[in-house]
Amino acid sequence: MAQFNYPAWNLIQLARESEKPLYEQIFAQFRDSIMEGRLARGTRLPPSRMLARELSLARNTVIQSYDKLEAEGYVRRIRGSGTFVDRVLPEDHRVPVVQPALGTERSVPALSARAGRLIDLGLPPERSETLDLSPGVPALDEFPYEVFGQIAARHWRSRALSQTGYGSTSHGSTSHGSTSHGASLTAQIATYLAETRGVTCQPGQIIVVGSTLQTAALVAHALLDPGDEVIVEDPGHVTQLATFSLCGLKTTAVPVDAQGLDAARIPRDTGGGPAARLIVVTPVEQFPFGCSMPLARRRAVLDWAHAHGAWVMEDDFNSEIRWSGQAQPPLFAEDRHGRVIYTSSFNRALAPGLRLAYLVVPPDLVEAFTLAQRALSHYAPQPDQALVAAFMREGHLAAHLRRMRAIYRERSLLLADCLQQRLGESFAIPHVTAGLHMTIHPNRPFDDIAVASALSRRGFDCPPLSLYCQGPVRHGLILGFGNTRTERIPARAATVADVIAELSARPGEARAAR
Amino acid sequence: MAQFNYPAWNLIQLARESEKPLYEQIFAQFRDSIMEGRLARGTRLPPSRMLARELSLARNTVIQSYDKLEAEGYVRRIRGSGTFVDRVLPEDHRVPVVQPALGTERSVPALSARAGRLIDLGLPPERSETLDLSPGVPALDEFPYEVFGQIAARHWRSRALSQTGYGSTSHGSTSHGSTSHGASLTAQIATYLAETRGVTCQPGQIIVVGSTLQTAALVAHALLDPGDEVIVEDPGHVTQLATFSLCGLKTTAVPVDAQGLDAARIPRDTGGGPAARLIVVTPVEQFPFGCSMPLARRRAVLDWAHAHGAWVMEDDFNSEIRWSGQAQPPLFAEDRHGRVIYTSSFNRALAPGLRLAYLVVPPDLVEAFTLAQRALSHYAPQPDQALVAAFMREGHLAAHLRRMRAIYRERSLLLADCLQQRLGESFAIPHVTAGLHMTIHPNRPFDDIAVASALSRRGFDCPPLSLYCQGPVRHGLILGFGNTRTERIPARAATVADVIAELSARPGEARAAR
Repeated sequence: MAQFNYPAWNLIQLARESEKPLYEQIFAQFRDSIMEGRLARGTRLPPSRMLARELSLARNTVIQSYDKLEAEGYVRRIRGSGTFVDRVLPEDHRVPVVQPALGTERSVPALSARAGRLIDLGLPPERSETLDLSPGVPALDEFPYEVFGQIAARHWRSRALSQTGYGSTSHGSTSHGSTSHGASLTAQIATYLAETRGVTCQPGQIIVVGSTLQTAALVAHALLDPGDEVIVEDPGHVTQLATFSLCGLKTTAVPVDAQGLDAARIPRDTGGGPAARLIVVTPVEQFPFGCSMPLARRRAVLDWAHAHGAWVMEDDFNSEIRWSGQAQPPLFAEDRHGRVIYTSSFNRALAPGLRLAYLVVPPDLVEAFTLAQRALSHYAPQPDQALVAAFMREGHLAAHLRRMRAIYRERSLLLADCLQQRLGESFAIPHVTAGLHMTIHPNRPFDDIAVASALSRRGFDCPPLSLYCQGPVRHGLILGFGNTRTERIPARAATVADVIAELSARPGEARAAR
Repeated sequence: MAQFNYPAWNLIQLARESEKPLYEQIFAQFRDSIMEGRLARGTRLPPSRMLARELSLARNTVIQSYDKLEAEGYVRRIRGSGTFVDRVLPEDHRVPVVQPALGTERSVPALSARAGRLIDLGLPPERSETLDLSPGVPALDEFPYEVFGQIAARHWRSRALSQTGYGSTSHGSTSHGSTSHGASLTAQIATYLAETRGVTCQPGQIIVVGSTLQTAALVAHALLDPGDEVIVEDPGHVTQLATFSLCGLKTTAVPVDAQGLDAARIPRDTGGGPAARLIVVTPVEQFPFGCSMPLARRRAVLDWAHAHGAWVMEDDFNSEIRWSGQAQPPLFAEDRHGRVIYTSSFNRALAPGLRLAYLVVPPDLVEAFTLAQRALSHYAPQPDQALVAAFMREGHLAAHLRRMRAIYRERSLLLADCLQQRLGESFAIPHVTAGLHMTIHPNRPFDDIAVASALSRRGFDCPPLSLYCQGPVRHGLILGFGNTRTERIPARAATVADVIAELSARPGEARAAR
C-alpha cells in the first residue's frame, strides 16, 4: 500500500499481492476518484515519472494505466502540458451526480431553534450589482482598480505579513509596526471622521470589522443579553433583524415619517416591563427614506437613552456620498453621556466587496467590545486594512469621493427627471442630495411587490418598499442610481414606467404575478 | 455660516454678522479643531484658494488666518506642498490629552452579562509572530510574497470587483463569474480536500468564512440553542470556549490522553438530563498534544453522535503540514450519517493574517448554514478569496507546501535534538511529524506558568500547558518551531533550558514570579 500527500494522490492504494495487475489497479482507482468527484474535471494528473517514484513502480506501469484512462475517455493528454481529467466523461449521460452516502435512517436534520426562526424569517434577496438600478451598490465600474493594484503589489512586496501574523486586534498594525505602511487603518479613519463628520475620537476607540452586520452583532453581544429588546426603525434595514434574532434579541419597530424615526413613539419605561436596552437609528440619512432627523428628535433619542440607561447604535452609512447641502453631524458628536455607538462602512465610499466596516465606541466600552470582537472573531484581514489605509493616507479616498459625488449627482438628477416626466402625476419623486438610491411613493393604489417582481424578470433590482416594513405596510419602489451608467438611465427609467403602467392597466394580472 | 465636505472642513462655521474678523474666526476654529484632535498632526489644510472659494471669501482672508496659525505654532508651511498641522503643538506641555467629554454622572457601563462572563474568563494572550518559538505561527518570512503581489496586481487590474459587489455568498464568484479568475475558491478547496484529505464533497457544501472561530460560531448558531451543551477536549483550544460562551452554550470538558479524546468518557444520555448536542474534536492532530485517535475511538465518537442525534465538529487544522507517515483520513470521510461538520483554515498552510477558514457541511445543512452565515455576516472578502483561489489553481499552494514541509521538518528535528540534549533527563521530548509545535512534558514537578512568563520577558511565546487545561491541571511547555529561523533554533532552545534550570534551582522565586 502506498499513499502520499498533496499534490499527490493518497487515493491510490496498491494491493501488491493481488492478482489484478498493478496498472489495472491504478486505472480503476483513478477512474473511481474521477467518477466520484474526488478528482475534478480539468485536474492535472501527476507526471508519470513522479507517480512511479512515489509508488515505487516502474514508470511503464504508470504509463500503461494512463493509456487505459485515455483510451476509455477519462483523461486527455496535452503534449508538453500533461495528463488532465477530461471535461466530458463517458458516464456523463448515464450516472447521476454523486451525493455523499447517507444512511437511509437519516431524518430531517435537527437544526437549532434559532436557525429555524431564521429560515421562517424569509430574508429579502441580497442586492445584486449585476442588475440595473440596484440600491446601495456604488459605481463599481468607476472603482480605482489601477491604484488598488499598485498599492496591493507594493503591499505584498513589502512583506508586511511577516510582521502581522494573526494580528487580530484592529490596532495590531500600529503596535507591531508595518513600517512600509505606517499609520494603521484606525488612525486613518479617526482623521477621516474628524475631517468629514466632526467625530472626535482616539484611534483606539475604533474597531474595524468585516461588515455592517458584524457591527450589529458586536453591539448585540457586548451590550445586550438574550431576551433583551432593541428598537428599530420601520421601515428600515430588515436584514439586521435576522442578526438581532440570531443574537437572541427581541425587536420593536417604531415608525419613521418624513423627519425620520418618530421619537415620541419610542416606548417609555412606565414601571411595567423593562424598557428596550438599545435603539438603532439612521439619523443623518434614513434608510430607505433618506430624510434627516431634526434637532428636537435627535435630542429626544439621546435623552431617552440617557434616562433609560440604554444604548444608541447610530448607522451613519451614507453620509459621505453627498453633493449638496450640509450633512448633519452624527448623534455621536452630540452625545455627552457615552451612550452612542457610531457605525459606518466603506461599502458605498469604496465597494461592499471589500467587507470593511467599523464602530466608534465610548472609551469605557473599548475593553468589552474588543473581547467580544475576539470571541466572535469579527475582524477584517490585515492586508485589506493596510491596502485601504494606504489608499486613504495618500489622499486617494478624498479624490475618489470628489469624483464620485459628481457622478452620483448627475445620475440621481437624470433618474429623477426621467421618472418625473413619466410618473410625476402618480408618484412623489424625491429630490435627493445624498446616497445611492431614491424611494418613490405612489399617490394611488400600487402593488409594489408585483412591480418589483416584474422588473426583476427584466434584469432590474428595484425592491418594493413594503418588503422593508414591519408594521403598517407602505408601498413604494426603491431605485438605485449608483451602479447604472449615466447613458443607460433614461432607457431604464422608461422601462420602470412601462412596467408600472402595464401592471396598473391590468391590476388582476399584477396580483397574479405575486 | 458655511460648511462643506471632505476633504474640506465642515468644522468652519462663519458668523458673518459677528464683530470678530472673519480671519480670526477661521483661525480660532482651526486652532480648536487641532487642539481637540479633530485635525490630526500632520494633516494637510485645504489650499487657501480652495477654502476661500468654498467659504465665498477673499483668498487673502484665508491666507491671513493661515499666517496667524503659523505664527502661533499650530501649522507649518512647506513650500510647494502645502500647509500642515504641526507635529509639535504649543499646548503640548500644558494640555492633557483630550478625552471625549462625558457627563460626571457616568457610572460603570452596563455591559451585557455575556460580555461580563467573557471578561471573567480571562482569555490567554493571542499568539505573537514577533516572539520566538510561538506555536501555530507559520514561517511568515518564507511566505510567497512575490507571487501574491503578482496575483493581487493582476486581480485588481482585471476589475473583478465590478462583477462581485456584495458577493457575499461563498459561491458568488462562480455564479456571477469573475471571468479572469474562473473557478471559485470553493471549487479549489473541494479539489484540494479530495486530493489531500480524501474528503469528497461538492463545492456548494463548502462555506468560506473569516476565521477558525467563525467556523465555531457558525456551528453554534446553526445547530445549537442557548443553554445547549457542547463537549470539548481537555486540554484543548481554550479560545473557542469564549466563542461558545458568547453563543450561549455550556461546555463540558472530556480528558485527552496519548490517543486523543477518551471516547469512553463522553457523557451518555442516561435518561437524566439531555445529552450534549455537539462534540468538538481534533481527531487527526490533537491540539496541543499532536496525537491521533485510533480507529476504535473514532468510531466511538461517530456512534455516540449518531445514537444521540448530536453533531461532530471536526477541526482538521494541522493535517496538511506533515512530513512523515500518513495523515489519517478525517472523520468526515467516514461519516455515513451526515453528523460531521469538517473545519479547517489557511492559517498554517499560508498565513493567519489572511483570515480564511472554511467548513464542509452535509448537503442537507447547507441552507441553515448559509442563512446563519448571512445573519452573522461571517464572510471572507471576495478579493482575498480570488487571490487564494488563483494561487491554488496555478499550483502555487502545492509547491509552497512541499517547500514548507522540508523547512518544518528540519526545524522540528533540530529543536527536538537541542531540547533532548539539554532537557532529555527531566522532560519527555516528543518526535513530531506534523504541525508547527511540540508539547514537552516534565517528569518531575514543574511550574510551567512561571517558566512561560520568565520566557515571555525574554521575547519568547511558549505558553504553559496548564493554560489549556480545564479539569485536572497538567504541566508542560508548548514550543513552536514554525516561525523561528533554523539557524536561531539552537540558541533559543538553550535559553529555554537555561530558564527552566534557573527556576528549578530556585523554586521559591519561580513561585514568586507567578
